[in-house]
Amino acid sequence: MAAVVTGMTGFRILHTDPSSRARLGLLETAHGAVETPAFMPVGTQGTVKALDPRRLQELGVQILLCNAYHLYLRPGTDVIEHFRGLHRFIGWDKPILTDSGGYQIFSLQQLRRVSDEGVEFRSHIDGSSHVFTPERVVEIQRILGSDIMMVLDECPPYPAERRDIETAVRRTLQWASRSLRAFQQNEALYGYRQLLFGIGQGGINPDLRRFCLQELCQWDFDGFAIGGLSVGEPTEAMYEMIALSTELLPTDRPRYLMGVGTPENILTAIELGVDLFDCVLPTRNARNGQLFTTRGKINVRNARWRYSDEPLDPELNYPVSRTVTLGYLRHLFIAREVTALIIATEHNLAFYHWLLATAREKIRQGTFRQWKRSFLERLQQAEVPTTHEVPPCP
Amino acid sequence: MAAVVTGMTGFRILHTDPSSRARLGLLETAHGAVETPAFMPVGTQGTVKALDPRRLQELGVQILLCNAYHLYLRPGTDVIEHFRGLHRFIGWDKPILTDSGGYQIFSLQQLRRVSDEGVEFRSHIDGSSHVFTPERVVEIQRILGSDIMMVLDECPPYPAERRDIETAVRRTLQWASRSLRAFQQNEALYGYRQLLFGIGQGGINPDLRRFCLQELCQWDFDGFAIGGLSVGEPTEAMYEMIALSTELLPTDRPRYLMGVGTPENILTAIELGVDLFDCVLPTRNARNGQLFTTRGKINVRNARWRYSDEPLDPELNYPVSRTVTLGYLRHLFIAREVTALIIATEHNLAFYHWLLATAREKIRQGTFRQWKRSFLERLQQAEVPTTHEVPPCP
Repeated sequence: MAAVVTGMTGFRILHTDPSSRARLGLLETAHGAVETPAFMPVGTQGTVKALDPRRLQELGVQILLCNAYHLYLRPGTDVIEHFRGLHRFIGWDKPILTDSGGYQIFSLQQLRRVSDEGVEFRSHIDGSSHVFTPERVVEIQRILGSDIMMVLDECPPYPAERRDIETAVRRTLQWASRSLRAFQQNEALYGYRQLLFGIGQGGINPDLRRFCLQELCQWDFDGFAIGGLSVGEPTEAMYEMIALSTELLPTDRPRYLMGVGTPENILTAIELGVDLFDCVLPTRNARNGQLFTTRGKINVRNARWRYSDEPLDPELNYPVSRTVTLGYLRHLFIAREVTALIIATEHNLAFYHWLLATAREKIRQGTFRQWKRSFLERLQQAEVPTTHEVPPCP
Repeated sequence: MAAVVTGMTGFRILHTDPSSRARLGLLETAHGAVETPAFMPVGTQGTVKALDPRRLQELGVQILLCNAYHLYLRPGTDVIEHFRGLHRFIGWDKPILTDSGGYQIFSLQQLRRVSDEGVEFRSHIDGSSHVFTPERVVEIQRILGSDIMMVLDECPPYPAERRDIETAVRRTLQWASRSLRAFQQNEALYGYRQLLFGIGQGGINPDLRRFCLQELCQWDFDGFAIGGLSVGEPTEAMYEMIALSTELLPTDRPRYLMGVGTPENILTAIELGVDLFDCVLPTRNARNGQLFTTRGKINVRNARWRYSDEPLDPELNYPVSRTVTLGYLRHLFIAREVTALIIATEHNLAFYHWLLATAREKIRQGTFRQWKRSFLERLQQAEVPTTHEVPPCP
């Protein structure tokens, strides 16, 4: 891998859908360009669970998401600094976005104490005590060397008192401002430019979300994220918040909807003008035996697939989807073979990759809305009955 | 994958080492030829643990070992017959050898009852009762459609009373004869020829082992296996039994040493004229974090690798061995990522693949003995200290 990469950074809109806010873009980072809309597989601890980096490359994954909080705790920034960054540590020379880990810390509940200064928390691994401030989180992501760094924000749970959401918005804004200052005052460690994205909060309160984003948009972030959604609120409320956000956000900066979601969520958000996505759904559900396919969700552990010699999804142009059969994959799950996790994860990421690539193609052709409608109808009609439920994306 | 494969079957010696019994051979099966000596990765339940069939192909694996007992219990022969054999079920179009599962059944101890007729056992999965006779085991392997089928034998534990070993030898011979008859009386199910190997037993008693093999060699098996070794006996006794066996076995049939072993065991057995090997050592130890490398064994969980940016083994010409670092793989093990198992398994199989390919090359060049001596010396000297022990190959 090249020691130092110094590409152009920036964002360009290549094409806009005539009948929606959907846009085709190119996000240039130091480790290469990302065609948007794009889905980022979740590699929390420096790997997508049950997939090695080489397989990710073969799948055509454009950009990987890792988690600053997790990597700070383990292996520790000393290790990653010794390797001169996350790319060299994990052997991945394409773009990486690191989430600050704010979401994970605020999920700790019993283990954290938050103040305007920052958040004190106990490690979920060994109970040791740590403090994250906005400045420290930027510093950690300097060491990680991620192409896109995320500010520390406060993500309130759902439901939450209005007062608590107001506090979270106020802190998120203060922290965003401090993060940006820390980012501008310190140089990159490894000779290439990193980007910093701000994050909007506000729960499902239109006025708070509008206020938060209006403030945030005044600052010179490289991109903006819509945070605090897909945490249990009704889907319609989520869509409303996304619509409201993309109306306010500058058109010349990438927009990242954090932690979302299902194929339907993603296509709807693309229609509303979102450019970047991440979610554990395809990878986590894969490990539970739930496959995303062009003919709907399939619970491959179901006895009905026992004799099935159908491929996982013959419409996808990936070896894993076209050659592995449902019967074989079911056997691997029932026999508790790790290989089941590998195959299901690879297939689900292949499906998401195909979904986003097709969305881009349809935006380019100006037929995104029609395709979206007919594809979602088809998914709905084709929905294959399952025997057990899979937990929703957190 | 082709529906029916009808290649030539047979075994040819291509080259003999001038200064040992080592031989280079070509074992032709219905699903292609295997250059020998060869190592067969263990895919008990129809997959190598933590590796998908596609990755196995990429590694250049020539022949895969599966287990008739395990596959009979799960997914069941009805499923595999529906797929018209194991090759199509698992998506592997190269040769497959199936072990009868006798070893597994005799390891059940509390759960089995053996008589001259066969062995009655309870499933380790659900406690259901089953009977394996020599005839039934051939029939099961007809359904599996393996290229090489193994007879049902009785594998005594170590240590065992002489009387018990005598009984095991007598039964093993009776069963071999019944297996061969069943094999000759029934046709292959899928239109291609399968091979049947006999198995010699006898513990570490030279006279019993000699007796068993002398009887066995009178029958027209396509190959012969040396069974019941590497079950806890001293290594020297194992080598003695191998030497005794290869002296008796016909030179024009392949010889398969079951369940062996370490790189040193394998090279020594090659020198003594063995052609085929299988062992869980590379795959099982990989899952415990033990790597086989050209500079000795490495316990990658050890804290000494925390900062190591050395590749797993730069001397091996495999992407996994040349690009993944010890520091990253250690992190994946410590963080309990499934990806650790994938990478370690792939690397260890790459090492075994390299070891056997190099052995073949050295036999071809007539320098096998010299290379073996210097390579094992180097392994010994380079042995890297480890912090914890890994259980031996069963």
